Amino acid sequence: MKYSELITIGQQAKSVSGALASCGSTTKNAALQSIAHALVTNSKKIIAANAVDIANGRKNNFSNALLDRLRVDEQRISAIAAGISAVSALPDPIGDVIDGWILPNGLAVQKIRVPLGVICIIFESRPNVTADAAALCLKSGNVAILRGGKEALNTNIEIVNTMRQALSSCNLPEDWIQLVTTTDRAAVGELLRLNQFIDVVIPRGGAGLIKTVVESSTIPVIETGTGVCHTFIDASADSEMALAIAINAKVSRPAVCNAMETLLIHRDIADQFMPKLIAAMFANTVELRGCGRSLQYDNRIIPATGADWAAEFLDLILAIKIVDGLDEAIDHINEYSTKHSEAIISNDYINISRFQREIDAAVVYVNASTRFTDGYEFGFGAEIGISTQKLHARGPMGLKELTSIKYLINGNGQTR
Amino acid sequence: MKYSELITIGQQAKSVSGALASCGSTTKNAALQSIAHALVTNSKKIIAANAVDIANGRKNNFSNALLDRLRVDEQRISAIAAGISAVSALPDPIGDVIDGWILPNGLAVQKIRVPLGVICIIFESRPNVTADAAALCLKSGNVAILRGGKEALNTNIEIVNTMRQALSSCNLPEDWIQLVTTTDRAAVGELLRLNQFIDVVIPRGGAGLIKTVVESSTIPVIETGTGVCHTFIDASADSEMALAIAINAKVSRPAVCNAMETLLIHRDIADQFMPKLIAAMFANTVELRGCGRSLQYDNRIIPATGADWAAEFLDLILAIKIVDGLDEAIDHINEYSTKHSEAIISNDYINISRFQREIDAAVVYVNASTRFTDGYEFGFGAEIGISTQKLHARGPMGLKELTSIKYLINGNGQTR
Repeated sequence: MKYSELITIGQQAKSVSGALASCGSTTKNAALQSIAHALVTNSKKIIAANAVDIANGRKNNFSNALLDRLRVDEQRISAIAAGISAVSALPDPIGDVIDGWILPNGLAVQKIRVPLGVICIIFESRPNVTADAAALCLKSGNVAILRGGKEALNTNIEIVNTMRQALSSCNLPEDWIQLVTTTDRAAVGELLRLNQFIDVVIPRGGAGLIKTVVESSTIPVIETGTGVCHTFIDASADSEMALAIAINAKVSRPAVCNAMETLLIHRDIADQFMPKLIAAMFANTVELRGCGRSLQYDNRIIPATGADWAAEFLDLILAIKIVDGLDEAIDHINEYSTKHSEAIISNDYINISRFQREIDAAVVYVNASTRFTDGYEFGFGAEIGISTQKLHARGPMGLKELTSIKYLINGNGQTR
Repeated sequence: MKYSELITIGQQAKSVSGALASCGSTTKNAALQSIAHALVTNSKKIIAANAVDIANGRKNNFSNALLDRLRVDEQRISAIAAGISAVSALPDPIGDVIDGWILPNGLAVQKIRVPLGVICIIFESRPNVTADAAALCLKSGNVAILRGGKEALNTNIEIVNTMRQALSSCNLPEDWIQLVTTTDRAAVGELLRLNQFIDVVIPRGGAGLIKTVVESSTIPVIETGTGVCHTFIDASADSEMALAIAINAKVSRPAVCNAMETLLIHRDIADQFMPKLIAAMFANTVELRGCGRSLQYDNRIIPATGADWAAEFLDLILAIKIVDGLDEAIDHINEYSTKHSEAIISNDYINISRFQREIDAAVVYVNASTRFTDGYEFGFGAEIGISTQKLHARGPMGLKELTSIKYLINGNGQTR
């Protein structure tokens, strides 16, 4: 172990996790309100630290988009603080009795919700994730070990210091929130093997970051994010509804994981639907990459390559394929889907049933936009990410998804 | 990838997993009954294959205990078949609607239970696990990739062939159950990186096997088994009850993971309790390894070393520590526990509450033996193992723990 900082952080996190786990909502909510208040009070210092990161970013020729993601100002800090206040107002999942029964021998079994323990969140440049992730961990009784991108290091240090001081001012352990300041890449590798201190790792960021974490971690990982989302327009679709949904799924926010990347169209509706679709997409400056059959409808459609079917464009680009029917649509989706969100637009009962049953994804929509896959839209009040794996959590993850369970069994002398 | 067999197995598993996932209970139950019947019908061939493994084991100087675990006979095959019939009679968890609500925009959300997909089970010598694990996977809609110990290879091949033929005879894909026959250790390493084909890995066996799997796998793992279980006899304990529970927890089946390994005794009850405990434990040929304070009670108690507090003896050996009170008991347990099963014997409300809240384990008992941590005892009707991790499943895992979820969302044109 080369990075002794990591051992210290792990030990500190573990040593205060019991106190946080058995902490009541009143205390946790007061801590969150104190943190929200401190971030606003301390906003000048945070913005000053952020200016250093922005200046470094400029020196390193960061794109304007990246600089914008990195930037914090008074308004963004207020938004972060408001988000933390909102988390404090959410119901506390810890202690919920999820199930309970009496065994034939009289043992009374209760299955209750408990925190996971210590959660390590590894993320990229946006500093709002720092405060947001820490707040969700705190509310769900979990110690947070945060490891942000090095581009935002100065900002993250200031945000985390502010949050830790707020905890101290409430006479609570500041080690409930910790930041890994070693930005060396090798340090992440060591962090991901600290099984004795960390219970779960959640990567938040691009496909590259997630892949690295999944491949290097010996600690259980909750994979988040990549979304190659499809919409299938069935022959029986209401074409006006289909068009509105397709435009919404592609155009409303193309850079997010629940945006549509590939549109599949039943051949029987193609002649009627394609001209309207093409006009609407081009009006929204969407680049179209189509299968052979689709090219006949407009010479501005670029022939799609094999890679386009697997691409998460995160941009105003749409792959289009005309299919012979439901079977081809299901096969295509199950081959290229990242199991995030998939939709069918149809009025056919049998086809809808089959699509819902046979598509393997976190969320399967009928006659709605894939853009609804989101913790807030689902009514969870918060979101730590969208799980695309099948273990533990699938789909949008709110506070409940940051918990584990414990069985409490009460007896009066039972032996086996 | 050196072992092309593994790729083939993975591809085959993936390709038939959709059919199994959407298969109804009637078909799955008929398949299980057919498998149970075929194992009995084919018992002579299985026993003959087992004789080869036993002969090899003898050549390799296997202990009698290991040879016994390896052995199958008519009676054991009948028991395996009866177990599979029992699994077919259990309720099918797939398709259960776990939750559901209407969003403000009218979208109807259903959270339903679906199979995990393809489960790889890596286990050691006992051939009954082969059939048992395959049956639980099949019932929960999951394709099983089995990798048993090389000592049992001939037996496992015969058992799996029998099961596959039974599937074929029901006109079902025999690839729902597959066996990895490469016994090379390096092959396991490759198997554990086949993320594109396998959804979950479950190791069943000793601590060494589990550690290897956790450290090598890039696929999500459900860790099972190791149990350094404690019982704390509080000052207020009913000493007759405490004695009966301690004897049961240590002696009834010492080789299993829910057996007690360390007994903690409140100093205020030690003078009264220790003589009875010592007499009873020695009467049951239990070796006692004690802390300094405990040694004064009997000169046959061996001084415990540091390693004894962390040891999973799986044998008639018990570590004993006299503690100053609840705080020391909780600290000791949270330091050495493998988070499996822990018990307090007490009549003190405050101490019991604190123990239940502050002990971090899958199952926390009050006035009962730790031996009850078991899928059958819990009423699950089956068990694939006992999870000692916090992600996905914790404690005994039955059919429900072999499932994931999927959100089905029905709309009528909603866009965001």
